[in-house]
Amino acid sequence: MKSDFTSSIAEDQRLVEATLPSFLPLDGSSDVLLDAMRYSLMAGGKRLRPLLVLMACRACGGNPDDAMPAACAVEMVHTYSLIHDDLPAMDDDDLRRGKPTSHKVYGEANAILAGDALLTLAFEVLATRIHPPAIAAKCCASLAYGAGPQGMVAGQVLDLEAETNHAKSVAQLENIHRRKTGALIVASLEMGGLIAGASDEQLKHLKKYGQLIGLAFQIVDDILDCTGDAEVVGKNVRKDAASGKATYPELVGLEESRRHANNLVHQACDELQIFGSGAQELSDLARYLIERDR
Amino acid sequence: MKSDFTSSIAEDQRLVEATLPSFLPLDGSSDVLLDAMRYSLMAGGKRLRPLLVLMACRACGGNPDDAMPAACAVEMVHTYSLIHDDLPAMDDDDLRRGKPTSHKVYGEANAILAGDALLTLAFEVLATRIHPPAIAAKCCASLAYGAGPQGMVAGQVLDLEAETNHAKSVAQLENIHRRKTGALIVASLEMGGLIAGASDEQLKHLKKYGQLIGLAFQIVDDILDCTGDAEVVGKNVRKDAASGKATYPELVGLEESRRHANNLVHQACDELQIFGSGAQELSDLARYLIERDR
Repeated sequence: MKSDFTSSIAEDQRLVEATLPSFLPLDGSSDVLLDAMRYSLMAGGKRLRPLLVLMACRACGGNPDDAMPAACAVEMVHTYSLIHDDLPAMDDDDLRRGKPTSHKVYGEANAILAGDALLTLAFEVLATRIHPPAIAAKCCASLAYGAGPQGMVAGQVLDLEAETNHAKSVAQLENIHRRKTGALIVASLEMGGLIAGASDEQLKHLKKYGQLIGLAFQIVDDILDCTGDAEVVGKNVRKDAASGKATYPELVGLEESRRHANNLVHQACDELQIFGSGAQELSDLARYLIERDR
Repeated sequence: MKSDFTSSIAEDQRLVEATLPSFLPLDGSSDVLLDAMRYSLMAGGKRLRPLLVLMACRACGGNPDDAMPAACAVEMVHTYSLIHDDLPAMDDDDLRRGKPTSHKVYGEANAILAGDALLTLAFEVLATRIHPPAIAAKCCASLAYGAGPQGMVAGQVLDLEAETNHAKSVAQLENIHRRKTGALIVASLEMGGLIAGASDEQLKHLKKYGQLIGLAFQIVDDILDCTGDAEVVGKNVRKDAASGKATYPELVGLEESRRHANNLVHQACDELQIFGSGAQELSDLARYLIERDR
């Protein structure tokens, strides 16, 4: 079972890697801008959000080829968020996935602009490559909501505030995570479902699954930040503790954090029951997320 | 005639001012983020791009009420671009429309994120408030193309490069302006036309008009940067010369710059002939743009 799952993931990842650069504009106008966009977009990573788009589409009986533009669009948005989060004015990171961050390579101005360009391009890809147009508009709305001032951007603002205000409750931390990580994961699942023509009931369960694994994913990130090896994780670790940000392990301990993540994944899989065997890979993915070491 | 025109502009501007804040999310999640978004969005300005959306819609026989969400969306994108352009890593401006720039008030991180949020919200507004959804998708595509890596963002990258490489030809300068200013103006006109159900022929002329006035507008900006009064213009002047950026007056002289701007506006008005009297306010606006002193 596990090896079927990992080979199915690997095939999706391969397709995403091959398709992503095809959406970058050819008519450059500025080579450095396109280089900077490509540098971060093609820097690897798990491609979790594209996988969720494709798997949600399959779970609802859709053709994942139809969802590939949305899979690539959400990865562009995720990439833009990493570029901006790494900036000196934000988390000030010089290492990401084992490579120098965008502003280290291209300078701060070009890094900001490459992020802006990826965010904007994501909506162009959705609007022009998802069919029919009514579904394209719904995908634009879903992605914008997940990425915007009630979702991911709000999460980043709250996360930065927490460095100085030092959020101390689990509720505060979950509010940050729900927006910063969860909202884009929810949008990924919703887009995959929308493209497959999912019912409102199916969309509701997909989104709930997304909220639960989003939180589990972030807790595991916190655990890896405490316990992980920078070589394996591919970015600086123990950075959250150093910056004064609260983490799950700090608030409730390592063991309780692990237990909570497991519990969330269990609940997430319960949400998938209405899909029957079509959602097997979404269940497998949820379990895989908490077993990872990077 | 002139007073009819200025009172019609004033009425459109009043409506835009009243409608813009209604699209900001109420469910804050982060008060500082919403404050920063509102601070820049409601800082005044000519609201040129929203005016173009509304006027293009009317020129094609549409109801401008239907186009108001697009008018507000393009102003959000314009505002985000100003916030990011003003950042220390970019133009490093501390004054905009006579007020301290976003990063001066909210700090650099929040300014970057307020810009990101406004850009994202623009697409949410288009996707959810423009009807029917097929037109919403076309508007998303138009705005993303104008604002993205082949449009406005490319223009800003090229503009920053020109500071060090010191672009010296009129062709280079026009390429920068066409992308940095022109592309979003073209998108404004296209969206207004799309919402009115314009024909491809009408859209073609609207976009051509937009390219021409976009360039004229930028030349006038360059002229004001040379000759204007900071009190009247509302931002630092003679900044381009100080930064080493080439300007129209520097390349071809003040008189030739004025003549060129006039000529462009003349050509722009020729593009409006197919609309008959319905495009009178677009003609008037073009002339108004080159007569302005701010």
